[in-house]
Amino acid sequence: MSPSVVVLTGGVGGAKLALGFYDLVPKGRLSLIVNTGDDFEHLGLRICPDLDTALYTLSGRANPELGWGRANESWGFMKALAELGGENWFRLGDGDLALHVLRTQRLAAGERLSAVTAAFVRALGVRAALYPMSDDAVATMVASDDGELGFQDYFVRRCCEPRVRGLSFHGAERARLGGGAKAALAAPELAAIVIAPSNPYLSIDPILAVPGVRAALVAARAPVIAVTPIIAGKAVKGPTAKIMAELGLEPSPLAVARHYEGLIDGFVLDARDAALEARFSVPVWATDTLMTSLEDKQRVARAVLDFAARLAGGGR
Amino acid sequence: MSPSVVVLTGGVGGAKLALGFYDLVPKGRLSLIVNTGDDFEHLGLRICPDLDTALYTLSGRANPELGWGRANESWGFMKALAELGGENWFRLGDGDLALHVLRTQRLAAGERLSAVTAAFVRALGVRAALYPMSDDAVATMVASDDGELGFQDYFVRRCCEPRVRGLSFHGAERARLGGGAKAALAAPELAAIVIAPSNPYLSIDPILAVPGVRAALVAARAPVIAVTPIIAGKAVKGPTAKIMAELGLEPSPLAVARHYEGLIDGFVLDARDAALEARFSVPVWATDTLMTSLEDKQRVARAVLDFAARLAGGGR
Repeated sequence: MSPSVVVLTGGVGGAKLALGFYDLVPKGRLSLIVNTGDDFEHLGLRICPDLDTALYTLSGRANPELGWGRANESWGFMKALAELGGENWFRLGDGDLALHVLRTQRLAAGERLSAVTAAFVRALGVRAALYPMSDDAVATMVASDDGELGFQDYFVRRCCEPRVRGLSFHGAERARLGGGAKAALAAPELAAIVIAPSNPYLSIDPILAVPGVRAALVAARAPVIAVTPIIAGKAVKGPTAKIMAELGLEPSPLAVARHYEGLIDGFVLDARDAALEARFSVPVWATDTLMTSLEDKQRVARAVLDFAARLAGGGR
Repeated sequence: MSPSVVVLTGGVGGAKLALGFYDLVPKGRLSLIVNTGDDFEHLGLRICPDLDTALYTLSGRANPELGWGRANESWGFMKALAELGGENWFRLGDGDLALHVLRTQRLAAGERLSAVTAAFVRALGVRAALYPMSDDAVATMVASDDGELGFQDYFVRRCCEPRVRGLSFHGAERARLGGGAKAALAAPELAAIVIAPSNPYLSIDPILAVPGVRAALVAARAPVIAVTPIIAGKAVKGPTAKIMAELGLEPSPLAVARHYEGLIDGFVLDARDAALEARFSVPVWATDTLMTSLEDKQRVARAVLDFAARLAGGGR
C-alpha cells in the first residue's frame, strides 16, 4: 500500500501545505483533519471557513487574493443584503453561498457534517479525504479585553484588534473524533502526521482539544511533524505573532515547538531561523517554508516527507 | 382622507397593474393582498414568488425580461450549486437570494411573514403595504394527470405541462387573514378593491380561499372590480387559457367574470372583447388592458378608478 499522509490544519496557511501534499502523494492517500472551531451560524447558514478553504484549495477553486472563498467570485448577494439591511460584516460570495446553503439544508435534514463534507469533496472531484475534527459542535471562544467573543466576532468583525487573554473551545470535551479521522490517524501505511503551519492557538489547539486526538498522535507509529507558522519572528499571515505576544509568549518557532511538546517527533523550521536549531528539544529540519508558488508548496511538502522518512529511520 | 385602493394579486400580471396604481394613488394609500399559495421551501429557504415580484416591481428592481426576480441579476450561486450537485430546476439569482436567506432566518426566529415583508418594504423604500394573504402556510396543490403536484413542481419544474384536473389550497381552511389586510379591506376611505389580472385559479383563488376574504369583499362599501386576464381568448402571460380549457371552461373573460360572480361589482374587459359586453351579468368597462409600458399600467389603473367612481355613484 502506498504511504499516506494526515495533515491537521486550519485555514489558508495549512491549506497551502495540504495542496503541496495533494500533488505529491498518490491520489486518495491524503487526509486532512480540519479545524471546525471557527464554524458558526450566520444569517441562518452554517459556515465552516476552514473546511471550505481546504475544499476550494484542493479543488483548484480558491481565491488567491482574498485567502478565503472562491476565485472569480461575484458579490450580488452582499449588495442586495446591504439594501435589505441584513448583517454584512461577514462577506459571502455568490458562488460560496451554494456551499453554505446546501450544507445548512443537509445538516437540518439530519446528515452529519463529515458526510456532507465528503459529498462536496466527491462533487468537486477532490481525491483526498477532508474530515471535520468532529461532527459535534465546538466553538472557539476568545477571552479578550472586550470580554468573551465568538471566534468570527473576534477574527472578522473586530479584525483581531482586541487583546487576547486566553482561548477556550466550548463543547470540545464532549466532541467525538470522527471514525474516518480516527482510522486515518491509525493507518498502518501512514508516512507522517503533519501539523500544518496554521495558527497553533486558534486553528490547531481546537483539533487537539477533541478527546482522542492527542492520544492518537502519541500512539501513532508514523512521525508527527509540525511546520513552523513563524518565520523570523513574524507570522506569514494572520494574527499568530500578535496573539503569541498577547499570551506572553515570544513569537518564535521555539515557542511553537514547545507548545507541541510531547506530541511532535520533529519540527520544520524556516531556514531564516536556522540559528535557533540547537535550542529545540526535538529533531529539526530547516528549509525555506514560505509558500507562494505551487512549487514552493510541493517543495515544503517534500521536505516534510523526507524528514519523516529520516525520523522513521528509513533515511533517503 | 385621500382614497385608498386594495389590489388582490398574484405575480407578474397583477404586479404590473399594482405599479400603475402605485404611481396614481397617494403614497401609502395602496395595499396589496398577495397570493402565498405558491410559497415553498427550496434548499431550506422560504421562497415567496408573488410577494417578491410585487416587492421588486414596486421598488423598481424587477427583471422585465424574466418576469420574476431582480434586474441586473448575476447567477454565480446557481453555477456553484450545479457543480455541487444541488437541485437547480428553480433558478435563484444572487441578489434575489438575499431576500430568501433573510426571510428564512427571520421566520426561523419566530417573526411572522407579514412583519418580515413589511421590513423589506421599508428597507427598499416602497410606500405601499404588501400583505401576504395569510401568515399561515397555504399550499396550492395541482391535481393533474401526473398525480397531485406542489405548485412549483407543476409550474416551474414541469413547465405547466401536465393536464390540470383541479386545484386545492392545503391549509387554507385554517389560515387566518392578517390584521393589516383585514383593516385595508374595511377602510372607510377605500375607493376600490381590485382583483388583478392574475390567474383566477392559481393566483386569486388561494386568496379567496382564506376565510374572511370573500365576506370582506361582499361587505365592502367600495366597488370590487376584476380586471380581465384573458384578451381575445388568450392569456397575456402564463397558463391561464390552458388551465381554463383543461378545467372545461371556455378561455373567455365571460368565464372569468362568472368565476367571480357574487364578489364583483364590475368587470374591466379588454376592448378587443367589447362585443361580449351585453353578455355580462355585472357592469363592464371596456378598455385596452394590455400593459407593456408604465403609461399602459397607469392608464389601466386610472380606468379602474374611473369605473369604480362611476359604480360608486360619484360619476366623473
